[in-house]
Amino acid sequence: MREVHRIAIAGFGNVGQALAHMVAAGHPAASGIVIVGVSDPRYGTVASTEGLDAAWLLASAGDSDFGQHGAHMPEAGVLEMIEATDADTLVELTITDLETGEPAATHLRHAMSVGWNVSTTNKGPIALYYGELLELAHRNRVSLAFEGTVMSGTPVVSLARHIRSARCQALFGILNGTTNYILSQVELGVSHEEALARAQAHGFAEADPSADVDGHDAAAKLVILAEIAAGADLPIASVERVPLSSVSTDEVLAAIGDGERVRYLASLDQRQDQWHASVSPRRLPDSDPLARVVDAGNGVTFRTELLGDVTLFGPGAGPSETAFAVLSDLEGIQRASV
Amino acid sequence: MREVHRIAIAGFGNVGQALAHMVAAGHPAASGIVIVGVSDPRYGTVASTEGLDAAWLLASAGDSDFGQHGAHMPEAGVLEMIEATDADTLVELTITDLETGEPAATHLRHAMSVGWNVSTTNKGPIALYYGELLELAHRNRVSLAFEGTVMSGTPVVSLARHIRSARCQALFGILNGTTNYILSQVELGVSHEEALARAQAHGFAEADPSADVDGHDAAAKLVILAEIAAGADLPIASVERVPLSSVSTDEVLAAIGDGERVRYLASLDQRQDQWHASVSPRRLPDSDPLARVVDAGNGVTFRTELLGDVTLFGPGAGPSETAFAVLSDLEGIQRASV
Repeated sequence: MREVHRIAIAGFGNVGQALAHMVAAGHPAASGIVIVGVSDPRYGTVASTEGLDAAWLLASAGDSDFGQHGAHMPEAGVLEMIEATDADTLVELTITDLETGEPAATHLRHAMSVGWNVSTTNKGPIALYYGELLELAHRNRVSLAFEGTVMSGTPVVSLARHIRSARCQALFGILNGTTNYILSQVELGVSHEEALARAQAHGFAEADPSADVDGHDAAAKLVILAEIAAGADLPIASVERVPLSSVSTDEVLAAIGDGERVRYLASLDQRQDQWHASVSPRRLPDSDPLARVVDAGNGVTFRTELLGDVTLFGPGAGPSETAFAVLSDLEGIQRASV
Repeated sequence: MREVHRIAIAGFGNVGQALAHMVAAGHPAASGIVIVGVSDPRYGTVASTEGLDAAWLLASAGDSDFGQHGAHMPEAGVLEMIEATDADTLVELTITDLETGEPAATHLRHAMSVGWNVSTTNKGPIALYYGELLELAHRNRVSLAFEGTVMSGTPVVSLARHIRSARCQALFGILNGTTNYILSQVELGVSHEEALARAQAHGFAEADPSADVDGHDAAAKLVILAEIAAGADLPIASVERVPLSSVSTDEVLAAIGDGERVRYLASLDQRQDQWHASVSPRRLPDSDPLARVVDAGNGVTFRTELLGDVTLFGPGAGPSETAFAVLSDLEGIQRASV
């Protein structure tokens, strides 16, 4: 039933490899997908309109690089890969830069300009350049899909699109798994430092966790949801950020005694007809659904005129969860192009 | 930006009137919608390819009937309305019959056979005849949309479609607002009978509440979600139903003492490779997100292979909430037909 979907992958880290694993294993959710190019600074660039063997790509990335492949392109990067092959969709999975959106923004622009659809899990270009990229997609009659930029594969971007016509007036989210995990540990009596070390040991906090604990990551996700759910066009820099460290262990534990919970809350609301966005540690009553999000979970409440509150919980990270977001994007692209 | 969407309405009760109110008020979510026919046994049938005045329809339904309209069709019903006008979409809002699915099923079949899209909030035909109706939609190249059949305007049907490729292995839902309201009241010390009377006074329990308290309503909704999220084709009669009255006030209160909550749970899981579906009062640990659904709220957890648990909370009933479901359907239909 499912048609062939030819993809080229920019960035072959955990998510790209999880995707390749599903293709190699013949997972039903990945059926019809053919990988026609992969480019990653660590492994090199291969491109073949015939399709590449997903198991070979994984083995080569595990061993060394793509140098042994006949279709290996020495010195080439993502742009050369795009020129060298022919895909339906560029899957953009490079590392996020919230200052410039690069190199992802350049990859997305180039792919759309040659008529490819794009699916990205990279928050940078979407949080920084959504309007421009959407216009480019319209002009080239291609799809711009980015379900994986927020809450990994939990379909919150899709939900945000549905919510928009219910008139979103505010939204509240736990959008960063690392900081929620730290707070959950602190609630159990673990010190802030030890909790961060555990998050790093689990692999969901970076060696430099500042994007998480200073709110940059959540701010970028909030900007994306604000745009899709509420049509609010906010620069990332306009999001007020209060670091997680501003709340002490004593304050976290005291909240529990008062029937409340401290959560690192991303919030959007309106004040005198202006949107106001912030990321900060906040007390929530125990009855608030978001107070129940524990460990590395994520959750968002959309407050709307027509539906009241609608809340979604789900995973916020993980290689296969994020790979599923890409598969959702590809499915949506395929539906749109029938 | 939005194109004109011509709709004919079968059943002009609370939901149809809420929809007409939004059209009459020029609500942005209803922009572009033109009502070209309305049929209801209480008010009669009017049809006009020119479009009908929504405010006039509401006033006439409030006062008496549609007899004063030049386009009034004495003796006519929904089928005659379909013949007499030309709509993009039939909006089917007649009263649910879970035994036969009628008269809605006949209305939907007829509308699709003449090339109209359909949007319905009526659980009966979808729970009973989904496969047949979907095939009819494909054959006639029209859309079959039914977001409002479960959780009113909370986009759970749309979420269920996204979840399907994540491989739904089980689902758990609080799908009936009346019974959850009764349980919430009982938790506060109100008797079961008094709680039911209050639900009736609030207008969300029917005079004959058996569809709610015996689990028929939740069973039909469960069958719909099971089909969309998991591809499980279950007859309504196969859903094991245990009435709400099987749990006593003492048991509800005892659960709270044990850090648990009794909820009237619709559940789908697999047992020896067979789907098993039930609606019954069940104890949930307080940490379960569904334990936190109170009053007339609804919630569903989809348990999936690729994403783990994904949970959605939102309103389960209400005229304007359900009217919003229709607007979501119409938006989806419009996107599909571009």
